[in-house]
Amino acid sequence: MADTASTTAPNAAPSIGYELLRQPAQAGDHDALIQAMERDGFTFVVAPVQAEGTPGAAGVDASVSAADLRAPLDRAELVVQGPDFAAVTVAAVPPMLDAATVKDEVLRNKASLHFRRLVHWTGHLGVSAVQVPLPSDAAAIPEFARQLLAHAIPLLPYSALWVRVPLGDADAWSRWNLVRTLAGHHVKVQLLLDIGADLPDGPTDRTLARWRGEPLAAISLRTSAFLTNKKGYPVLSKAHQALVRPILVRNPHVIVSHDGTQRELAAYQQYVAFLFRSQPAPSVIDQFAAGYHDYLQSPLQPLMDNLEAQTYEIFERDPVKYAQYQEATRKCLVDRGPQPQVVMVVGAGPRGPLVDCVLRASAEAEVAVKVYAVEKNANALVSLRHKQRSVWGDQVEVVFADMRTWQAPEPCDILVSELLGSFGDNELSPECLDGVQHVLKPDGVSIPQSYTPFWAPVSSSKLWTEASAAKTVAALETPYVVMIRDATVLADPQPVWTFTHPVPVATMQPENAHNERYSVTEFTMRDEALVHGMAGYFECVLYKDVLLSTVPATHSTDMTSWFPIYFPVRFPVAVSKGARVQVHLWRATGSHKVWYEWSVVPLAALADGLASEPARVPAGYASLIHNAGGRSYGIGL
Amino acid sequence: MADTASTTAPNAAPSIGYELLRQPAQAGDHDALIQAMERDGFTFVVAPVQAEGTPGAAGVDASVSAADLRAPLDRAELVVQGPDFAAVTVAAVPPMLDAATVKDEVLRNKASLHFRRLVHWTGHLGVSAVQVPLPSDAAAIPEFARQLLAHAIPLLPYSALWVRVPLGDADAWSRWNLVRTLAGHHVKVQLLLDIGADLPDGPTDRTLARWRGEPLAAISLRTSAFLTNKKGYPVLSKAHQALVRPILVRNPHVIVSHDGTQRELAAYQQYVAFLFRSQPAPSVIDQFAAGYHDYLQSPLQPLMDNLEAQTYEIFERDPVKYAQYQEATRKCLVDRGPQPQVVMVVGAGPRGPLVDCVLRASAEAEVAVKVYAVEKNANALVSLRHKQRSVWGDQVEVVFADMRTWQAPEPCDILVSELLGSFGDNELSPECLDGVQHVLKPDGVSIPQSYTPFWAPVSSSKLWTEASAAKTVAALETPYVVMIRDATVLADPQPVWTFTHPVPVATMQPENAHNERYSVTEFTMRDEALVHGMAGYFECVLYKDVLLSTVPATHSTDMTSWFPIYFPVRFPVAVSKGARVQVHLWRATGSHKVWYEWSVVPLAALADGLASEPARVPAGYASLIHNAGGRSYGIGL
Repeated sequence: MADTASTTAPNAAPSIGYELLRQPAQAGDHDALIQAMERDGFTFVVAPVQAEGTPGAAGVDASVSAADLRAPLDRAELVVQGPDFAAVTVAAVPPMLDAATVKDEVLRNKASLHFRRLVHWTGHLGVSAVQVPLPSDAAAIPEFARQLLAHAIPLLPYSALWVRVPLGDADAWSRWNLVRTLAGHHVKVQLLLDIGADLPDGPTDRTLARWRGEPLAAISLRTSAFLTNKKGYPVLSKAHQALVRPILVRNPHVIVSHDGTQRELAAYQQYVAFLFRSQPAPSVIDQFAAGYHDYLQSPLQPLMDNLEAQTYEIFERDPVKYAQYQEATRKCLVDRGPQPQVVMVVGAGPRGPLVDCVLRASAEAEVAVKVYAVEKNANALVSLRHKQRSVWGDQVEVVFADMRTWQAPEPCDILVSELLGSFGDNELSPECLDGVQHVLKPDGVSIPQSYTPFWAPVSSSKLWTEASAAKTVAALETPYVVMIRDATVLADPQPVWTFTHPVPVATMQPENAHNERYSVTEFTMRDEALVHGMAGYFECVLYKDVLLSTVPATHSTDMTSWFPIYFPVRFPVAVSKGARVQVHLWRATGSHKVWYEWSVVPLAALADGLASEPARVPAGYASLIHNAGGRSYGIGL
Repeated sequence: MADTASTTAPNAAPSIGYELLRQPAQAGDHDALIQAMERDGFTFVVAPVQAEGTPGAAGVDASVSAADLRAPLDRAELVVQGPDFAAVTVAAVPPMLDAATVKDEVLRNKASLHFRRLVHWTGHLGVSAVQVPLPSDAAAIPEFARQLLAHAIPLLPYSALWVRVPLGDADAWSRWNLVRTLAGHHVKVQLLLDIGADLPDGPTDRTLARWRGEPLAAISLRTSAFLTNKKGYPVLSKAHQALVRPILVRNPHVIVSHDGTQRELAAYQQYVAFLFRSQPAPSVIDQFAAGYHDYLQSPLQPLMDNLEAQTYEIFERDPVKYAQYQEATRKCLVDRGPQPQVVMVVGAGPRGPLVDCVLRASAEAEVAVKVYAVEKNANALVSLRHKQRSVWGDQVEVVFADMRTWQAPEPCDILVSELLGSFGDNELSPECLDGVQHVLKPDGVSIPQSYTPFWAPVSSSKLWTEASAAKTVAALETPYVVMIRDATVLADPQPVWTFTHPVPVATMQPENAHNERYSVTEFTMRDEALVHGMAGYFECVLYKDVLLSTVPATHSTDMTSWFPIYFPVRFPVAVSKGARVQVHLWRATGSHKVWYEWSVVPLAALADGLASEPARVPAGYASLIHNAGGRSYGIGL
């Protein structure tokens, strides 16, 4: 059964600010900066805390005493002197930490005090955000992370915290990754990606993928990265556009960072606003998912709960899915005709869209059908019976029954169902279809004939911190239906297992054991990354070559019925470039529920033999078996 | 101030059992096995669940149907047929899982059902333990771990679970490590180390170190590993003894595993009992620590709490420490004499043992002293004043004061204190001595003159699971005083930082900032391992060459005053052989407390430049900064 979103949310207006990197900021300049902001159409401004040339404005000043660093700042050295316009102001803290500073106890202490007082002042003002540059020196990263945790986060209850990371620096991702890891994935620690004239080597897709899973709050576009078009206006090169446009979909704050000689900043604002406006129209799927990107939902429990009218309505909005069902039924009727066919639609819903599909297919195939529409939800029966009387007539018989226990008056030729979840079998289609299989003739056909879940490791700070927010073990051992966007899928999705219908009776086992599964999938990492879990999809064979797919590479065009599914891990798993990761998944069945258990195992944790070529890959810490024994999550039978 | 144990516990009697590996077990053999056990002096017996030749006795039997595997076992196929003597019986489950079995869904299901019913039966009997062989095939390990979690642990509420691991298999540690990692360090999953004739390559110390941090419950000694001495009795070779004797200190269950032709088993029992009896006498320190090995205690809070009489008494039992204090004071008096010296003992305690040291040193050095005995604990003053009147006389003046605020009537030449914790400065000796430094003459001497904490990464399932048991973040962000035994120290301890007294007044900073510290230590891993935290020690210079040390390589002989300290990590950090690990430690000071923050960073998580030779080491997942901002733990000022 379809699993997606139930409402939509409006898009926010773009947030475009500016900063003057080469123009010395004087005390009290904030007023002038705000005036220019309003004049040139910006919505915010980035200002340094201290005026140029004042002690500490450019970093730690060894000549300032520790006592002075504990004393209040002097109004005469401040660019932003009071809380007016704080809500449209981002405060910039200068770089302070390098290897030498962190090694010298006195300097380190001064850096800590200086950082603390600058952040304290900005927190007092209530600026919208504070930006802090990522140290270029790896040895300074642990102290940097510690200062964020000890000073910035507690002192900024109302302001965002942006770590400014240069996109052009090939090692920047590793340093950034260490910061947020040391900071325990603290939600306050967000990313400001600084985009200059030089882009990283390699294809743009690769660059984007590297950062897609990160908690990106803002980007900075340096004016030196712009070209001038024939009319004299600033524009981005094709390469820069290819990089920036996909990021704008996330609606980040954009900073025009003026690092050249004075020019009209308004033109940059207009160009960035144009980029926002001229984004390609969202796909049908993205339109449908608007407001639901990266929003975690618990999968449906269709057997335990009766669905509500609105839920059915959303499912039935998807024209693509029903077109495929109609085509599958048509082909099957042609293959089995011309004699009349008995078709049973199990799980018909209040409006019976699959019944409509069958009737249209029957007309197209010119094969007569007798249709049974079976539904267990008493509330759905009200509309279904009305439709039978007013639209379908005698060709359709409506049955109020749980398909698993229904005693059908005759066997059927074709059994049509749509009981699929985001991971294929996760809404118990196998169990339901086993239960109703007794109504099918020995040579009868199930539509769908089979379905196969796929999955791939995913890095997404967003998804993982959302799942972590509950601070319970169970929340990190539960799969979620989610329209994944701010995430990097780290390898091509691979098939997990396949369920085929009808099941040969000889292979059916007691206590549903034939629906238990164990799968080992193996993935090679394209880049150094943190694995935050698995992204799941499915492919379904409705009939012969008529398919449904939510796997990105083969996704049924414009089909909106299913979002992907996200299986989190308790602790992110660090993997290096080229490392292979084995992922284990169990589908377990009990007397009252079905559940998954999963584990991510960096390969060297297994025997050398398995992991020896091309080179011995590093052993990471294998994640424990999630949801062992179904302790955190199960789908009720 | 000393930090160790406060009571002692008795040793348990050795537990020695046997099993017959080559003799086919018949249904109902249990009675005979128990009779032989009693006859030969054993305390328990290991018996297979099923009789030899019955379906499934040797592993999964594909011919047994799934339905039969769900049915009750037949009494006629059982070796142990009822609960009599269950408390002295260990049930042995046969090996079931290999790569082929886990790949075949039907076989895997049968293995799961078979394992479940055997374990269920043993759990019903209430045997003392169930032993399960570690699969020799790495590909079977995840399914094995899952069966332990899903079937064994829930079905064995009263029985231990022993995973039998062959010591002679060089890859066994990795497989075992994967099992317990996948099982989330479940405390039920314990180790049975199977010791045969062939020992692993390499020095015995290395072999022992590999397994010392594991949750070892039992060892098996194969009779084929024994030699026969001149009198015809079985004995272990020197190499085997070197391996086994250190393990016996942990008092494991020992199984004599008879894998040869029939011989008198009683002789083996006698030999193992002899090994237990003939253990070298425990060191003074181990005697003192008896019952406190691996028992986590919170460090003292000597400034916030007044100590109790019993605590003082334990501290004062250590003759070595006081001998060193006496010698340090003597040397200092000789250097400063012959004119009379003013000596202040700060933190004198109820019996003033340091005052005694000073008086004895004065007599030895033939330098007269005037002693002030300063103590803030009002209850200690009662005894201290009595001792002054009854023993010391006018040479000693007792002062009731907090040393940090005491207005001394005259300056002193020598300031004697013992305020050291297990990590040197962790009981705030720096803060106390800064506070009292004003009483010292400009050329005066502090005894101690300096102290330096040391630490090293440690692997210890025991310590980590103990700290995890509270299931709180805070419990894994708190250091513990603990007599570490079941642990592998993974590299040589390294110095962290040094505090020196008196502090030059010019370097003193407001708000105690001069007692803040930041240390980066780097360790190379001897073996693939899991880092469960850091083991901390200290070295102290009392005066010139008179030292105290708890660092293992330089430990002051028989000094019992301090146990080591253990800093846990939230999640174990996996490291490969030869990997380098950087550990960051901060000592932070606030207005009301002092605290540590720490993080373990596998080196490749820093820049390549730091980690590039000899080979690029794997990036693990850097642990977050523990106790950031002192959120979980602090030492009150």
